[in-house]
Amino acid sequence: MMDGKEDERDIEIEGMIIANEESLERYRSGSAEDKDLLRQPLLKNMRTNNTSQLAIVGANVCPIESLDYEIIENDLFKQDWRSRTKVEIFQYVVLKWTLALLIGLGTGLVGFFNNLAVENIAGFKLLFTNSLMLREKYYHAFAAYAGCNMALAIAAAALCAYVAPAAAGSGIPEVKAYLNGVDAPSILAPKTLFVKIFGSIFGVAGGFVVGKEGPMVHTGSCIAFLLGQGGSRKYRLTWKWLRYFKNDRDRRDLITCGAAAGVAAAFRAPVGGVLFALEEAASWWRSALLWRTFFTTAVVAVVLRGFIDFCHGGKCGLFGEGGLIMFDVNSAKPTYSTPDLLAVILLGVIGGIFGSLYNYLVDKVLRTYSIINERGPILKIVLVVAISLLTSCCSYGLPWLSQCIPCPADLGDPCPTVGRSGNYKNFLCPPNHYNDLASLFLTTNDDAIRNLFSSGSDKEFQLTTLLTFFVAIYGLGIITYGIAIPSGLFIPVILAGASYGRLVGTFLGSFSYLDTGLFAILGAASFLGGTMRMTVSICVILLELTNDLLMLPLVMLVLLISKTVADCFNKGVYDQIVKLKGLPYLEAHAEPYMRNLVASDVVSGPLVTFSGVEKVGNILRVLKITKHNGFPVIDEPPFSAAPQLCGLVLRSHLLVLLKGKKFTKQRVRDASDIMRRFKANDFAKPGSGKGIQLGNLDIKEEEMEMYVDLHPITNTSPHTVVETMSLAKAAILFRELGLRHLLVVPKTLERPPIVGILTRHDLMPEHILGLYPQFDPHRKKP
Amino acid sequence: MMDGKEDERDIEIEGMIIANEESLERYRSGSAEDKDLLRQPLLKNMRTNNTSQLAIVGANVCPIESLDYEIIENDLFKQDWRSRTKVEIFQYVVLKWTLALLIGLGTGLVGFFNNLAVENIAGFKLLFTNSLMLREKYYHAFAAYAGCNMALAIAAAALCAYVAPAAAGSGIPEVKAYLNGVDAPSILAPKTLFVKIFGSIFGVAGGFVVGKEGPMVHTGSCIAFLLGQGGSRKYRLTWKWLRYFKNDRDRRDLITCGAAAGVAAAFRAPVGGVLFALEEAASWWRSALLWRTFFTTAVVAVVLRGFIDFCHGGKCGLFGEGGLIMFDVNSAKPTYSTPDLLAVILLGVIGGIFGSLYNYLVDKVLRTYSIINERGPILKIVLVVAISLLTSCCSYGLPWLSQCIPCPADLGDPCPTVGRSGNYKNFLCPPNHYNDLASLFLTTNDDAIRNLFSSGSDKEFQLTTLLTFFVAIYGLGIITYGIAIPSGLFIPVILAGASYGRLVGTFLGSFSYLDTGLFAILGAASFLGGTMRMTVSICVILLELTNDLLMLPLVMLVLLISKTVADCFNKGVYDQIVKLKGLPYLEAHAEPYMRNLVASDVVSGPLVTFSGVEKVGNILRVLKITKHNGFPVIDEPPFSAAPQLCGLVLRSHLLVLLKGKKFTKQRVRDASDIMRRFKANDFAKPGSGKGIQLGNLDIKEEEMEMYVDLHPITNTSPHTVVETMSLAKAAILFRELGLRHLLVVPKTLERPPIVGILTRHDLMPEHILGLYPQFDPHRKKP
Repeated sequence: MMDGKEDERDIEIEGMIIANEESLERYRSGSAEDKDLLRQPLLKNMRTNNTSQLAIVGANVCPIESLDYEIIENDLFKQDWRSRTKVEIFQYVVLKWTLALLIGLGTGLVGFFNNLAVENIAGFKLLFTNSLMLREKYYHAFAAYAGCNMALAIAAAALCAYVAPAAAGSGIPEVKAYLNGVDAPSILAPKTLFVKIFGSIFGVAGGFVVGKEGPMVHTGSCIAFLLGQGGSRKYRLTWKWLRYFKNDRDRRDLITCGAAAGVAAAFRAPVGGVLFALEEAASWWRSALLWRTFFTTAVVAVVLRGFIDFCHGGKCGLFGEGGLIMFDVNSAKPTYSTPDLLAVILLGVIGGIFGSLYNYLVDKVLRTYSIINERGPILKIVLVVAISLLTSCCSYGLPWLSQCIPCPADLGDPCPTVGRSGNYKNFLCPPNHYNDLASLFLTTNDDAIRNLFSSGSDKEFQLTTLLTFFVAIYGLGIITYGIAIPSGLFIPVILAGASYGRLVGTFLGSFSYLDTGLFAILGAASFLGGTMRMTVSICVILLELTNDLLMLPLVMLVLLISKTVADCFNKGVYDQIVKLKGLPYLEAHAEPYMRNLVASDVVSGPLVTFSGVEKVGNILRVLKITKHNGFPVIDEPPFSAAPQLCGLVLRSHLLVLLKGKKFTKQRVRDASDIMRRFKANDFAKPGSGKGIQLGNLDIKEEEMEMYVDLHPITNTSPHTVVETMSLAKAAILFRELGLRHLLVVPKTLERPPIVGILTRHDLMPEHILGLYPQFDPHRKKP
Repeated sequence: MMDGKEDERDIEIEGMIIANEESLERYRSGSAEDKDLLRQPLLKNMRTNNTSQLAIVGANVCPIESLDYEIIENDLFKQDWRSRTKVEIFQYVVLKWTLALLIGLGTGLVGFFNNLAVENIAGFKLLFTNSLMLREKYYHAFAAYAGCNMALAIAAAALCAYVAPAAAGSGIPEVKAYLNGVDAPSILAPKTLFVKIFGSIFGVAGGFVVGKEGPMVHTGSCIAFLLGQGGSRKYRLTWKWLRYFKNDRDRRDLITCGAAAGVAAAFRAPVGGVLFALEEAASWWRSALLWRTFFTTAVVAVVLRGFIDFCHGGKCGLFGEGGLIMFDVNSAKPTYSTPDLLAVILLGVIGGIFGSLYNYLVDKVLRTYSIINERGPILKIVLVVAISLLTSCCSYGLPWLSQCIPCPADLGDPCPTVGRSGNYKNFLCPPNHYNDLASLFLTTNDDAIRNLFSSGSDKEFQLTTLLTFFVAIYGLGIITYGIAIPSGLFIPVILAGASYGRLVGTFLGSFSYLDTGLFAILGAASFLGGTMRMTVSICVILLELTNDLLMLPLVMLVLLISKTVADCFNKGVYDQIVKLKGLPYLEAHAEPYMRNLVASDVVSGPLVTFSGVEKVGNILRVLKITKHNGFPVIDEPPFSAAPQLCGLVLRSHLLVLLKGKKFTKQRVRDASDIMRRFKANDFAKPGSGKGIQLGNLDIKEEEMEMYVDLHPITNTSPHTVVETMSLAKAAILFRELGLRHLLVVPKTLERPPIVGILTRHDLMPEHILGLYPQFDPHRKKP
């Protein structure tokens, strides 16, 4: 980590000592019984790996936690499950669907509100600027324009810098990591949601080259998380029925629905939303989930439609003229011949190259910005202001370079444009002329895309205009991502891609029969494929945006080509950001070199275990000196003939158990007290906050010498692998089942019943290659 | 099994003895060393389960085999993998994409050919009948019509009955089961492909109420299988590069592509095809697969488009007027109010009830037909002829009941219809009149659907007409599925649903502003949701068919309602057929009662194991007397200090090893000879045929006393669970990782190193509830 806050991270590194060596030494020199707790695994050598520290880039360094999708089978939970009535099961099902409905409603509402606000703020800003320009007060106009932008930018940046640093950026990488099992708690907190909504509105309205799509996905996920959690426990906003959803599995499903709803709300693309969640966001997928996300996005679509119908006829201020992108403006029939196909293939290849270059540059810019952003909130805001000024200069200044074009004769639309949105901005031109660069720059991003996509207007934009716009947007898009405002990547990429496509289309004008608007759509597809590397979801989103299924084969072709080309150079932009942020993302496949290793090769010691009936003092001491989140429980004589593995107990469950103080004087197995005292719900995972902390416990001195029976809270069916299991297969097992801990058991008999624990961290390529640098494919030969 | 051919099934029931008790007794009374091979697991009781035999309904009883998606890590395979060059890896990737391309091309070609043939044959038949009717030779016309239908029916049925019984029916359940890991070999054989293609053409052209969609999915899968396998080995059509694909995992991926391509070709719906494969067909899904299936369906779309462009202008006979369904005829703008929404909700509810009733009746009919079909091919053909006659009578006879309607005044289309396809069939009516029932009956199924979907023609069909048509099609669809011809379910369900929807639309005429054509589409959606229980894929397929994204929210709503309603009554139609056919399909979730059991509860003994270096005679004897497909290998002194589990060896690998005859006189561990003699490729799974059989081995008497080292072919990383693992978790592990064998290891030390093997069969609800009837939720109280 860049700022050296290692102690803040509590992602499980079960085998490794996080506490300092001194305290462990003190612990070792304790009683003989205590010593027994800390077993040395019988490995060939003790490994410590110092090279695997991951870099965290970005504003928010927060404790990262692993999620657990395993079904825990302990006595308490089993009792709870057996005692569930039919009514409770029915409640659960109804509640699940109600939540999906509420997520859809909430996200739809926020999506509409976002658009409404952006359209009104940006519209007012543009109209005001325009009115000043009409009075030839050009400096005033620029001051007004840049001033508005800067005020909005400062508002967004201040929110991000002071209230919720986690709300900066797209949010899709974080949601993706969460759905992979990596939880950075403040990512889905209420204040993040608040900042994300308003920061995104200010940022988009402030004229930045950013989108609202990534933030909407994050917003949808936050809404889903909050609904599933039932409000803050602190403010007693919780709802008792929601206890069914207080586990990582159900939360994951809800957040998948939220992510899908976000895309659906951002693009008005319900099917695209489902596919986005499936292709990009989710790491685990079930058929039932397909159905539930589909329901959620359908609700979003209905809500949006209702609001738009309501706003019809100017009831919502400036909204309604351009809000909620739906570019069903392209009515060109794509009939194509071989030269057209060749042009499209070329478009895809170059788009793929530009896309991967985009990723490369974004990566570099992010690394640079992280140095600035880490120096404090003031510098963050300064950076935002600088970019805002640059953007204002570009969008106000560049149109001056363009020549005026006479309005085309036969035109349905008014030319020059009256009001805010339209293809033909007058700018400084004489009547019946328009400035094509101003039509792209001095408008909202959505309108610019709509103008670029429009068909039947081949000559509308000059070649130089498109080139200028493309270069400016490509550059601005890259340098804008990473500043401290909520910023989506979809819109910048679509804008750059559409101008690139239209540029190619205009250039090839005489060689190809395809409409330039269609070229713009294909260009956008090629850029999206080149940066985000999604295929089916982008294809469907574009189809839903343009409402024209007939161009499907061409879009597919372009997407496949650009993705293939870009994959030769680097990874998708979201994967890159996940890696850059140091989130331990588990890939679905195992790396090839893992086949050369076995599970015990990456286990590192020493290991801390508990007895089935353990002394309270021992538990407390271990919880204090280690940061492990799971401990194997070993049954020993007299409770079993020989030491044998009983299961795994979680730190959070131990804390609840200790808080309950059901201790016994003697070392006996008696769980009846505990089974009466606790309900399964007591052990449910709290949504926000960290639950019971070590400091909250108030154990008296005499209680330290008492015993507690761990059996009722021990997961007796933990997943295990034999130590000689191929690491590749162990990694796939870990990933496919969504585990947090994987126990490694010995192969031969004369050994303690457990060798070690594998966690997410142990399976990270950085960790493994740190231990075994000889397998690194990129290693320089010594 | 109904026909008592139990011995033909070799699905693994590893723990159970399939050979008779006598031969086992003989085996047990052998030498002391031999006895050692056959260990009794230390279970509480020996269980045998006689109640779990599954019923097989249908023409084809064939040996069912489990597929194995586990990565096998043995010495030979590891060596092969390590020696792979970069060129070979590149070849592999290129080949994978080439195969996807070829699958797309092949399926597109077959899909087009199918349509071309159907349109021409059916078109000629209808025109001929029509010309006879114009000359008022009504009996001749019926004779010609019914005769043509019957001839086509007999051709289809004869192909199915004599050449490939596996080609009867939809094929989707079998493909679904294959992708779940259940292989009934002849399902994907070349002759099945042949019969499926031609049988489907004859069946659809023969006027049956069947679709070509299910058969197209099956055809696509067959094409994928054949391409991946590289032609028959017998005829030396194999291709050496394809050796990379000679394993179950790669075959599964190819067949998933094939299934998607099938839907894409049948409906001209590339995105719908991908989603169908994801939602209904596939049991395992990877992100990479999404991309590959998408590529395949894109190729299909391009191929189809190319052919259709080629056929433009009557170059392909009667094709081109109605072929390759694309109902972009509905141009009604769906604007709806609350009463409309209520009507749509009601439509969904009733559609869901009708859909589940459809499933119930299809189930009953299938059970009845299976009794007839099992009596031999002649009876199969007789049944087909009977249904064909009934269908001909209905479609020729029922239009006589309808009144003639005067043609509407302002109409783009000619009325009455000239030629074959059109909305206004003249039948017996005077000039300028048409018979609306004839427009639906005396046409191809595709045209009937198009007529029902057409918009702006609210009064075209009378209420009684729609009612008659609905009842007839609903009944005919149910009794037609299950006869010995390739028959899809999509088209009958869409037809019935569309007529139902239009009926409701016409009935509600004055109450609702929605177009009756839109009602027809929604009705079709409700029936599809009610029978097949897919949501996203049906929604996208319908959108791609009608090319109108604006009605998306309504279609979504109807689908969700009808699926929810129907789910209250029974399972989806494909799941039902899978169960009826006795295919051991593994569900993605564990049944609740499995949480009450542990892994060792369903293991049944005795268990047969091998030593690491085993006597050839012993291996042969075990292979002869058991039908197990996997055997645990135990390392024993002197090769290890105590008996310990080495891994698992497969029957097929043992047979290859024995065929190679690399035996040693002494019991020593020496694998060098074997490692030199064999390549990993020798152990690749053959596509068709059964590979080496026990009878092919020619082991001499003196070789029987020699030893062979099993280590090079032993999978040293088999997946294991501890015997006390919750059965629910073991089942999910088994399913998620796509296993064929799951080893159960003991918890305590003083036991042999393995307790038993779990296979797919052991996890079937029928098996478990047979052992533990107390958990059966449907059990009658004694």
